[in-house]
Amino acid sequence: MCGTEATFVAKHSPVSTTANTISHHTTQNAATAQNLDYTKVINLDHGDPAMYESYWRKMGKSCAITFAGDERLSYFSHVKKVCWFMEPKLEEEIRRLHNVVGNATVDNHDDYIVVGNGSSQLIQAALYALSSLHSDHHTRPISVVSAAPYYSSYPEMIEFLQSRLYKWEGDAREFEKDGAYIELVTSPNNPDGVLRRSVVLNKGEGSVVHDLAYYWPQYTAITSPANHPLMLFTVSKCTGHAGSRIGWAIVKNKEVAKKMTKFIEISTIGVSKESQLRAAKILGLVSDSCTTSFNPQFQNFFQYTHTLMYQRWQKLRQVVKASHLFTLQKYPIQYCHFARDFTETLPAFAWMMCKGREEDCEKLLRGHKILTRSGTKFGADPKFVRISMLGNEDDFNIFLQRLSTLHHQTVTAYN
Amino acid sequence: MCGTEATFVAKHSPVSTTANTISHHTTQNAATAQNLDYTKVINLDHGDPAMYESYWRKMGKSCAITFAGDERLSYFSHVKKVCWFMEPKLEEEIRRLHNVVGNATVDNHDDYIVVGNGSSQLIQAALYALSSLHSDHHTRPISVVSAAPYYSSYPEMIEFLQSRLYKWEGDAREFEKDGAYIELVTSPNNPDGVLRRSVVLNKGEGSVVHDLAYYWPQYTAITSPANHPLMLFTVSKCTGHAGSRIGWAIVKNKEVAKKMTKFIEISTIGVSKESQLRAAKILGLVSDSCTTSFNPQFQNFFQYTHTLMYQRWQKLRQVVKASHLFTLQKYPIQYCHFARDFTETLPAFAWMMCKGREEDCEKLLRGHKILTRSGTKFGADPKFVRISMLGNEDDFNIFLQRLSTLHHQTVTAYN
Repeated sequence: MCGTEATFVAKHSPVSTTANTISHHTTQNAATAQNLDYTKVINLDHGDPAMYESYWRKMGKSCAITFAGDERLSYFSHVKKVCWFMEPKLEEEIRRLHNVVGNATVDNHDDYIVVGNGSSQLIQAALYALSSLHSDHHTRPISVVSAAPYYSSYPEMIEFLQSRLYKWEGDAREFEKDGAYIELVTSPNNPDGVLRRSVVLNKGEGSVVHDLAYYWPQYTAITSPANHPLMLFTVSKCTGHAGSRIGWAIVKNKEVAKKMTKFIEISTIGVSKESQLRAAKILGLVSDSCTTSFNPQFQNFFQYTHTLMYQRWQKLRQVVKASHLFTLQKYPIQYCHFARDFTETLPAFAWMMCKGREEDCEKLLRGHKILTRSGTKFGADPKFVRISMLGNEDDFNIFLQRLSTLHHQTVTAYN
Repeated sequence: MCGTEATFVAKHSPVSTTANTISHHTTQNAATAQNLDYTKVINLDHGDPAMYESYWRKMGKSCAITFAGDERLSYFSHVKKVCWFMEPKLEEEIRRLHNVVGNATVDNHDDYIVVGNGSSQLIQAALYALSSLHSDHHTRPISVVSAAPYYSSYPEMIEFLQSRLYKWEGDAREFEKDGAYIELVTSPNNPDGVLRRSVVLNKGEGSVVHDLAYYWPQYTAITSPANHPLMLFTVSKCTGHAGSRIGWAIVKNKEVAKKMTKFIEISTIGVSKESQLRAAKILGLVSDSCTTSFNPQFQNFFQYTHTLMYQRWQKLRQVVKASHLFTLQKYPIQYCHFARDFTETLPAFAWMMCKGREEDCEKLLRGHKILTRSGTKFGADPKFVRISMLGNEDDFNIFLQRLSTLHHQTVTAYN
């Protein structure tokens, strides 16, 4: 399953020379910029993955792709497949990457891959498929739940069209109704980075959608290949190409895969061929970069990005520890079958809590022109905020600098 | 408004030399292929625009586009715009093309452009925006209607999620309810190619969405620039790049534009940047091709495609006339402000009716391995079928050959 000999340079040991080299100059530049730029609003609310750009810049021409004017005019990619609008090359590279990384079980004869316009569309496709295929029509709208803190967009994407097929019922741990339900399990979780399992107990009537957007080696140890009936992944959080809007579902049940395909057909008549083919190229290069036979000038993608994440997390932990105002979620060190070693959990978001009397962490940081997402958006306490760790280096360093000065200043001075 | 000196080679006059040159070889090849391929199922059910490939092939390298690996990773394109995920270059080229063609009024200070994953997504975004912004919540679900024969996908895209915001109420001409409604006006109409206006009378409570996907010079005379509160267009039917999934809305009301943007944000977090940038390039070349200063070896796009359409329609009319079994929708010849001459209407679909006792035209043709879409799907009589005129040349010629032999054969022989 794990086709790599690479080991990670940055684990729970001191940051390596390679790691230092990556960020030395940008940190220096940021240190200058932060003094000039104190009025700048730093937006860490979104998970925009600018952090990945430096890797792809280094890769140069090998990752470029060209489209001729007469290429891919058709709606169709492969009329005999369940997902008829999916480019075969993308499916091939998705399967290859999962086999290289070992983060999901894929089997050409036992599952179906459905491509979507990002995993947002696939979540909605899954809800449509599972609720409309449910045998008992009287149970609709089917309850949709997720354990708090849950991804902040779930309530809105489930409720905005006021569907009679499904409805948002909030925290899965508090769900006690009889009857059909769908549980959304995000693992590692957004916002808090914790590896998760389903929590609702009356399993007989339930379906589970596993949103595994962050189950990649730069964020977490790959403890075993995930093998669930319906799993979702996205290019955005794997390689950083969020602008391409490419997600995919691995679906065991053919009828569910067909119904999800139908959802995407009705909603958008498929998915951009250009994005699919570019994603195929990018995912292919990620797989290539993980093999020892690949050109040694191109670093293992997950090694490189794990190092970047490690550096950011190290700095954040130091600043938070020194401030005495905040505390961060703690994670176990686990054995990663991809890295073949124990690795730290380095989530895409920091889940930070105010200590002491401060009740509204988002407001406190906003007073310092740092935009984060309040815990309340995730069904949690306002003492928490979610902070993106994936933004550009300068913004991240300005954020750290401001955070480090917080305990010397009064909050009201910035309100 | 009309920035072209080009005149169309194929109008209501005999097919020109240029036009003959375009298809001479493909017709000959098809004549051979049709004898070999009599068992082949010819699918004219979908409007897959393969017909356009030859133009883009001739254009060669000038219409190719390359993406570097580190390009357009972000979700964001222009954070200060209402449609924050729209590439500025695409908006610029959309506005330029409408000004060149003169088919829609665009004004940077008076309207908003919202990009979508094809116009299907934009229709749903418009329904969401108009229904959720409606002041009287008690009128929901708001009735959605369209005059029959209406686009066959409308009922499904409106009903599939069983929204409480809006519901499909069928033929707009039979709609007599009081209260709020949304009328979908497709002009030229899909399936029958007729230029249309709204038909519901109680205008006080209604909103109209104008789907102008086919309001381009290869299909119809551009009689005046359309200037409605909410207009939809798509690259698929303009240039043939259906695989890119790019549509756009021109919206006069800022709140409607914001709400449509919100719909696309929740559904798919925006639209593929690769597709947007490729569409910008392609639309730019179409505009260039319409100006006399452009390299003369590249033919005016609309002139070229109008010629192709004219040839196909000429052949179809001849075969239908000779068969005595069918009849085709008739169209007026109108003055086209783009071509600066009177031009024929050459719809993307033929709307064909069986004469005599044959009740089910779709079944009749299916018996001859010709797949079309039944009139029943459009809220019309089963004596009608919709036939795509945009498919590849060989399939189209096999279709004609089979149609021409129909009156010599019994239907049952193929059932």
